[in-house]
Amino acid sequence: MHMQLLLVENICHKLQESLLSSNSGYSNYRGILNWCVVMLVLSNARLVLENLIKYGILVDPIQIISLFLKDPYSWPALCLIIVSNVFIMAALYIERKLSVVSCIHYVSLHLATVYCDLYVICLVCKFWGVFSGCVSVGGVMALGVFTVLFLKLYSYRDVNKWCRESRRAKARTLSRSHSSNGTAGYTHVNYPGNLTHRDIYYFIFVPTLCYELNFPRSPRIRKRFLLRRLLEMLFLMQLMIGLIQQWMVPTIQNSMKPFQDMDLSRIVERLLKLAVPNHFIWLIFFYWYFHSSMNFVAELMQFGDREFYRDWWNSETIPYFWSNWNIPVHKWCLRHFYKPMLVKGVNKFTAQLAVFFMSAFFHEYLVSVPLKMFRLWAFLGMMAQIPLAYFVGRFLRGNYGNAAVWMSLIIGQPIAVLMYFHDYYVLHYGNAAEGVAA
Amino acid sequence: MHMQLLLVENICHKLQESLLSSNSGYSNYRGILNWCVVMLVLSNARLVLENLIKYGILVDPIQIISLFLKDPYSWPALCLIIVSNVFIMAALYIERKLSVVSCIHYVSLHLATVYCDLYVICLVCKFWGVFSGCVSVGGVMALGVFTVLFLKLYSYRDVNKWCRESRRAKARTLSRSHSSNGTAGYTHVNYPGNLTHRDIYYFIFVPTLCYELNFPRSPRIRKRFLLRRLLEMLFLMQLMIGLIQQWMVPTIQNSMKPFQDMDLSRIVERLLKLAVPNHFIWLIFFYWYFHSSMNFVAELMQFGDREFYRDWWNSETIPYFWSNWNIPVHKWCLRHFYKPMLVKGVNKFTAQLAVFFMSAFFHEYLVSVPLKMFRLWAFLGMMAQIPLAYFVGRFLRGNYGNAAVWMSLIIGQPIAVLMYFHDYYVLHYGNAAEGVAA
Repeated sequence: MHMQLLLVENICHKLQESLLSSNSGYSNYRGILNWCVVMLVLSNARLVLENLIKYGILVDPIQIISLFLKDPYSWPALCLIIVSNVFIMAALYIERKLSVVSCIHYVSLHLATVYCDLYVICLVCKFWGVFSGCVSVGGVMALGVFTVLFLKLYSYRDVNKWCRESRRAKARTLSRSHSSNGTAGYTHVNYPGNLTHRDIYYFIFVPTLCYELNFPRSPRIRKRFLLRRLLEMLFLMQLMIGLIQQWMVPTIQNSMKPFQDMDLSRIVERLLKLAVPNHFIWLIFFYWYFHSSMNFVAELMQFGDREFYRDWWNSETIPYFWSNWNIPVHKWCLRHFYKPMLVKGVNKFTAQLAVFFMSAFFHEYLVSVPLKMFRLWAFLGMMAQIPLAYFVGRFLRGNYGNAAVWMSLIIGQPIAVLMYFHDYYVLHYGNAAEGVAA
Repeated sequence: MHMQLLLVENICHKLQESLLSSNSGYSNYRGILNWCVVMLVLSNARLVLENLIKYGILVDPIQIISLFLKDPYSWPALCLIIVSNVFIMAALYIERKLSVVSCIHYVSLHLATVYCDLYVICLVCKFWGVFSGCVSVGGVMALGVFTVLFLKLYSYRDVNKWCRESRRAKARTLSRSHSSNGTAGYTHVNYPGNLTHRDIYYFIFVPTLCYELNFPRSPRIRKRFLLRRLLEMLFLMQLMIGLIQQWMVPTIQNSMKPFQDMDLSRIVERLLKLAVPNHFIWLIFFYWYFHSSMNFVAELMQFGDREFYRDWWNSETIPYFWSNWNIPVHKWCLRHFYKPMLVKGVNKFTAQLAVFFMSAFFHEYLVSVPLKMFRLWAFLGMMAQIPLAYFVGRFLRGNYGNAAVWMSLIIGQPIAVLMYFHDYYVLHYGNAAEGVAA
């Protein structure tokens, strides 16, 4: 047996190809994913350490709290938010009026449009007055709240209008539609019955922009789920603030000099250095806002539809990304902007372009008003998505398309951030810098 | 129809969970791999740019060629390689003698052991004499050649011994074994017929360490395959040299100061900074040596068994990595060290430990002799694999185990590199540095 063992050992080679040769047919590179993760963790651990050695600890939670408390502009912003209730009430009472005097069609359209547009104008005027100082956290929040409110009330007006129209249609044909989508345990609400304070405020607080008479409701509030989302919210909030203070701010400040000197290779280096923290913060923001916060609010309100995002991380084309990362806005655009345009006879491509234009306008609006600079970088950034989408859709498939989408996200954002910061810096500290240079 | 469209639009929410909620059952994160790749590419693009801005272009192919040509120690190394033919001839003639006077068993064992051990001692002595100067590329290569030769001749001796033993066994039992493993087109060789110059030199040049009387042969030399491997060899060689000159050398030089000051956080930062280029160079080296070069030589020699590595990148335990990344050495250890020990009655665990000890010895030997420093860092590095293997095998499974293996590779190597470089630096420039410090 001993001899046989040795004889068998004699033969230790056999005809075969190397695994990495293309004709070996081997394709299990599952370990590469782990390699990527480990390399990313280590690379970023080094960056964190380098940052700490260079700058020490810059994180200061007190600074943020004091920004909220001491900032003289955050109180007017709070007032503005309280004022928003006036618009909500106006919307409700106008709709109640319209539900009764349904024949006066032109009045309905007119009034409905007015109350929507009115406060947007108010808003802009007010803000231009209030923001005489620097960028205010409270101001940005108020602006966000008003924008959301505008979209919600627009949806509220549209749905109520559709209900009136269908009621008229029904009255004419005498047919009854049995479209019931209420969840068991909740009474099904029909058209004029929905015009209550409770109903409109539920819609205002619920994390969706599309009004519906009978929202799907979750059966109960899961306490553990609620607690986990709350802890995530608090932790990620702190993490984001810490990363901005520790990583973004010094990097942006360091990139001002290359920008002023127009030293191209250093600008690119700074841009790539900024891209990493910016992207991480964006990812954390995404999770914090679209998963933790929205789920928290939805759980609290027993709102059933938790589809606040779809699998945009797998998107292989630019349009797929834009229509899947922010589902509330996407749904709103589809329901209240894109489809009504199609109904009015606009062709598909024009309607898509119009949606993009509107989206670009809102991006610019949300950045420019608080910064008090109309520079169109955000607008141009959004517009640049159109040729990019064409290029990616035309030439890249599968994983390459996905990589291109990621690339545009990781690189595109910091370009816009640097542009705004540069202009803001030049506007506010430009003369001082020139003085130093002279 | 228009009305119906609007009515359908009325219902736009349904009861569902967010994708990232654990109870959504969603698990398609294929895009994350692309994200990792994009992030790695961008992070490293930045590092490359930073490096170029900081140091300019340091790559200098002439430097390497001049190192080969001008280095006065590379010629003795070449002589040593030529001298190695003496050992090959000695091995062949001793085996021929033994095949005839097979009865004198003790002579065989004695002589065989002697010729193996003899030149190892010679080698060490010679090298200690030759390498009176600094580290020499030619010297490292000669050392490598001699180590490979030692392992090959050891295998040659063992296999011939087994053949003699089996011949005797056959003569005793009068049974004939029909173990034929020759490939069609080549004549099958039996024991004493293999003791030719052609046969031993074929074995010496073929990329394996295990001797066999009838190697599997590939049917023909594929010219395209050969050319591709050759181009890979030349390109990757240049790439490695370039990366070392441009990335490794400045990083190591910059890490000397923190090491002398024993500034822990900076040492860790430097270590992580070194880990990235070191790991990339190791990966390129792996591909260059185990895929391109070995396949090139094998194709040229029509050697059939191309399994020079297995899928170590998927390894979930440390032993799996060690037994799959370097198949020629692994096969040799198994065939000529581990299994003979088992046959002699050593228990499995002790045999495994012995293999590890031998491996650690060779690692230390290949590093220490050219550097002329016995510091045991490589030996300790290899020995540290044992507790690490225990820890990983005990506590980590699947992807976590794989990540731990990668981590040990990425972090472990630069620690050893820095240790040796530090000691080498202190030994050669330490006094100068102290002089400057004083």
